[in-house]
Amino acid sequence: MSFFNLQTTNSTNSKARAGIITLSDGRTIRTPVFMPVGTRGSVKAISQEDLRELDIEIILCNTYHLYLRPGQHLIEKVSGGLHKFISWDRGILTDSGGYQVYSLATLRKITEEGVHFKSHIDGSSHLLTPEKSIEIQRSLNSDIVMAFDECPALPAPYETLDRSLELTARWAKRSLSVSLNEGQNIFAIIQGGPYFDLRMKSLELLRDDGFAGYALGGLSVGEKNEEMVELCEKFVSHMPQNKPRYLMGVGTPVDILRGISNGLDMFDCVLPSRNARNGQAFTSKGTLNIKNAKFMEDTTPLDSNCQCKVCKNYSRAYIRHLYVVGEYLAGQLLTYHNLYFYIKIVRQAREAIFQGEFDNYFKRFLVDYSSLGGD
Amino acid sequence: MSFFNLQTTNSTNSKARAGIITLSDGRTIRTPVFMPVGTRGSVKAISQEDLRELDIEIILCNTYHLYLRPGQHLIEKVSGGLHKFISWDRGILTDSGGYQVYSLATLRKITEEGVHFKSHIDGSSHLLTPEKSIEIQRSLNSDIVMAFDECPALPAPYETLDRSLELTARWAKRSLSVSLNEGQNIFAIIQGGPYFDLRMKSLELLRDDGFAGYALGGLSVGEKNEEMVELCEKFVSHMPQNKPRYLMGVGTPVDILRGISNGLDMFDCVLPSRNARNGQAFTSKGTLNIKNAKFMEDTTPLDSNCQCKVCKNYSRAYIRHLYVVGEYLAGQLLTYHNLYFYIKIVRQAREAIFQGEFDNYFKRFLVDYSSLGGD
Repeated sequence: MSFFNLQTTNSTNSKARAGIITLSDGRTIRTPVFMPVGTRGSVKAISQEDLRELDIEIILCNTYHLYLRPGQHLIEKVSGGLHKFISWDRGILTDSGGYQVYSLATLRKITEEGVHFKSHIDGSSHLLTPEKSIEIQRSLNSDIVMAFDECPALPAPYETLDRSLELTARWAKRSLSVSLNEGQNIFAIIQGGPYFDLRMKSLELLRDDGFAGYALGGLSVGEKNEEMVELCEKFVSHMPQNKPRYLMGVGTPVDILRGISNGLDMFDCVLPSRNARNGQAFTSKGTLNIKNAKFMEDTTPLDSNCQCKVCKNYSRAYIRHLYVVGEYLAGQLLTYHNLYFYIKIVRQAREAIFQGEFDNYFKRFLVDYSSLGGD
Repeated sequence: MSFFNLQTTNSTNSKARAGIITLSDGRTIRTPVFMPVGTRGSVKAISQEDLRELDIEIILCNTYHLYLRPGQHLIEKVSGGLHKFISWDRGILTDSGGYQVYSLATLRKITEEGVHFKSHIDGSSHLLTPEKSIEIQRSLNSDIVMAFDECPALPAPYETLDRSLELTARWAKRSLSVSLNEGQNIFAIIQGGPYFDLRMKSLELLRDDGFAGYALGGLSVGEKNEEMVELCEKFVSHMPQNKPRYLMGVGTPVDILRGISNGLDMFDCVLPSRNARNGQAFTSKGTLNIKNAKFMEDTTPLDSNCQCKVCKNYSRAYIRHLYVVGEYLAGQLLTYHNLYFYIKIVRQAREAIFQGEFDNYFKRFLVDYSSLGGD
């Protein structure tokens, strides 16, 4: 049983592709796939029953957060891994912890060995190395493990990015040297900022059959959106054909569909859930913010083209009221709807790829999606 | 079609009784009944789909809160009432607004006309009169409307309570003089503190066929629990037999079952939902607080005797983790479980009444419920 089967590529001139990832016990993930973020073992404001109802096949959990609380040893001891601990038998991808160390922790010091940092929660001192990151992810027993990388914020000098991708490559080999549990798969992370030649260099350094997939890291971290777009257009087709290609931490619906058009398979992002809690709904006509006074008497659903249970049952006027008075249910309903929207567009994209219609689908999406004009 | 049908009384020596309340369109509520509190049009942290799944037949919403935000006129204009606005086609009882004015608003001044107060949200000045309260509840179009009462905190001098219940009686008649929508029913609120003779006086002043039910107000507002218990034991049997008897704002599972044993039919309380958000679970063996370190590695469900979806799917260890790190899902899961528990014991009590076994049921419940010893 191979880990990734490429089922089809779009028959028109786009590079979009559809595939199947097969996890242990025959569990499958249809690609392209969007992975909601369940930072600390919960996709904020919705339950695992909701995730199943949304037909979500894989979520991302954060190694850094789970390492600090409740600790991977507790999860391993109590439940033998994250799946049973959080009651989720579908796919789990864990990140390496690196990104959060760089963005949340304080007093970081990066050495060849790894990263020294202080916890953002209690200031305690920690050292995260490639070996330690993989050991934590082994304790969590996630289905897809990410190699430990350095992820510099952009913009950054060319030379810095060059040195950084070399360190990332050495760390990747050390990550690969740690044995995993049966059924676990490890992905490498390609770095190099917006520079095509650095990305190619990073890729060459990381080519190793030990990696089950390749991720593009270090994007959507401060650079201009055009830089990311341009890099993906040029670079993605050089990534291995027979392995999943994962664009980390990206992005808006348009970013994701553009990523798909460039031949990327996997995406994760906090946008649909985090923005939900800030009152933003993603709709087929663009985004809207439910705080806006114009929704006060609006009896229509968040998205008239949406079939989700939130849109079937609740009006904008009610959700706005919930949001304005600070009711939990506002975040719950908006999160559910936004995830439904993200899952739907990625599934529709997949369908369109099978029909050789992805380019048309993307074009039609863009026309509709700009009609609200943002809000 | 009568509003209330008494189906049976317990055949043993308890005064417990079971009945059916029939609302407009033939919707029914089985009594005894527990009504979850949906303060601002949402039972905090769970959705209306969850309420339906929990087989909840009626919720309580707060007139004071909905009057201030979003305002009854908006609800009426947008949806013709609260049911459609919040997407809930089962029963809704609205309180009179009095209790929140007394407990939340500032600069209250009570006159014969009504209560002058300042909003706890923005300090704006308002006057709530019996007529105004009923008009608001008419705009909300709740199924059960409460007459406007004065509700003094306890302990209070006998004379104060006496004057207060007389004012409440005058206000009740003014409340009754306001016409309601077809299908709406109004309940009177009996006051008088812990004094049996004052309660009898209040009841006599309120006897009027215009009232569809009678509530005991002004309990669980600062008096000793024994005082409430003693008053209910002596007083409830004097309340009309053929109308629902409602104990407002009460209480713990034991309070509710004791209320049932004294012949009360309806209860509402924030305990199961509010305490959930503070980490407390109600279980067949008593309460537990999930924050407690002893649950850190506990793979059992909140309540091993519970069949709810939370207890089927999630462990104490996971819910404790969620609570400790501040995840929304902790409050969502605990609220769902606690409401399931409350609904279950009241439904089991109803079954036991039909079988003439209520006293035994209550006794067995008390034995089990004290076994954790509180936590």
